[in-house]
Amino acid sequence: MKQALANLRNGKFVLVFDNESREGETDFVIASQFVTPDAIKRMRKDGGGLIFLMTSHAIAQKLQLPFLADLFSNVSAQYPVLKELIPNDIPYDTKSSFSLYINHRQTFTGITDNDRSLTMKKFAELTKSIENMDTITAMKHFGKEFRSPGHIPICVASEKLLKERKGHTELVVALLHMAGLVPVGSGCEIMGDSGKALSKEDAKRYAEKNGFTFLEGNEIVRAWNEWSG
Amino acid sequence: MKQALANLRNGKFVLVFDNESREGETDFVIASQFVTPDAIKRMRKDGGGLIFLMTSHAIAQKLQLPFLADLFSNVSAQYPVLKELIPNDIPYDTKSSFSLYINHRQTFTGITDNDRSLTMKKFAELTKSIENMDTITAMKHFGKEFRSPGHIPICVASEKLLKERKGHTELVVALLHMAGLVPVGSGCEIMGDSGKALSKEDAKRYAEKNGFTFLEGNEIVRAWNEWSG
Repeated sequence: MKQALANLRNGKFVLVFDNESREGETDFVIASQFVTPDAIKRMRKDGGGLIFLMTSHAIAQKLQLPFLADLFSNVSAQYPVLKELIPNDIPYDTKSSFSLYINHRQTFTGITDNDRSLTMKKFAELTKSIENMDTITAMKHFGKEFRSPGHIPICVASEKLLKERKGHTELVVALLHMAGLVPVGSGCEIMGDSGKALSKEDAKRYAEKNGFTFLEGNEIVRAWNEWSG
Repeated sequence: MKQALANLRNGKFVLVFDNESREGETDFVIASQFVTPDAIKRMRKDGGGLIFLMTSHAIAQKLQLPFLADLFSNVSAQYPVLKELIPNDIPYDTKSSFSLYINHRQTFTGITDNDRSLTMKKFAELTKSIENMDTITAMKHFGKEFRSPGHIPICVASEKLLKERKGHTELVVALLHMAGLVPVGSGCEIMGDSGKALSKEDAKRYAEKNGFTFLEGNEIVRAWNEWSG
């Protein structure tokens, strides 16, 4: 755990496997304040899943970021198709943590390594800069720099963090808190060659070969309980 | 053009470059009715951008699929952050073509090659099956099979297609119409190693090496004008 936190502080990747009884998936994780175009390239080439942001419930509240599932549910009278598409059957958890998709306003298409890196790094910087602002001012600052729809989904951790949900978003926000970093992480699921997610054993081998720390959800929960308790 | 349409009918990729004055980007394109987990793997490994669906304005109308930018704008009184994030400064076009993100209800995480292939192929099949339904029945069928939020964005072509907008979505829907296929395409932007999109010249070289047809937006517009005129 110590090594993983040190690596995060040094802008390095950590590999996080959630749990056999959840997604059973390993994600690349890096603190967004240190993300680079090369890190995006690594995630898309060796990971291949969705490249996404993770942040804390507190930051989402400050920015009034809604969960997309809640927003859709609330406006389904105006948009009846949303009522039909209600995500009431997610197999690995009760609720999706997806909020809005954003692009930094300085991006061009929003999808290149340079653009995705910029959006993510700037979002981490923004969350730092709004710390002492009220929510109206914080939203204005957010909107000055970012637009939505965009290419980077923001996943928002549950309010009670690991006590409520043990997804990658909560695990990563806990790690960043313990590392003393801005609680904004960048991640990407690691796919295998067989049509499925890369197996835990293969992900461990990949981590070893490339010098990345490999963490399991259970270890993070244990460390978090000690640290926060 | 003939070769490209034949390839699409045979379930093969075609590479589509839009225009130097637009995104200046080459996308993998395949008819979604023929997409496979191996095709998804090719797109994420050799493309590396967002893997997305494209469909016609008529299908979106039948399913009452909103443009996400319009939806956000309409509900911004309830969600003030959406007002701040208004995408009024997209550098390459006037409007984003993104509608909802979906997963097929039989998917697990939604992001593996198997899952993304299933979502896309089943969406193509759905659009075929709703042809003679009214919109209420069509939406119900849609919701029985799919949920939102999900991992696959649906991009919707402009109502007047290439007369109105010349993005990848319109170009691909035009190609699929000319090929006599279900107007649902799967695509992915091709990234380069330098942080930017792969250059047109490099994309052409890649197409040649791998036996894919390479098309430019202008050629498609010309063929479409002849075919539809």
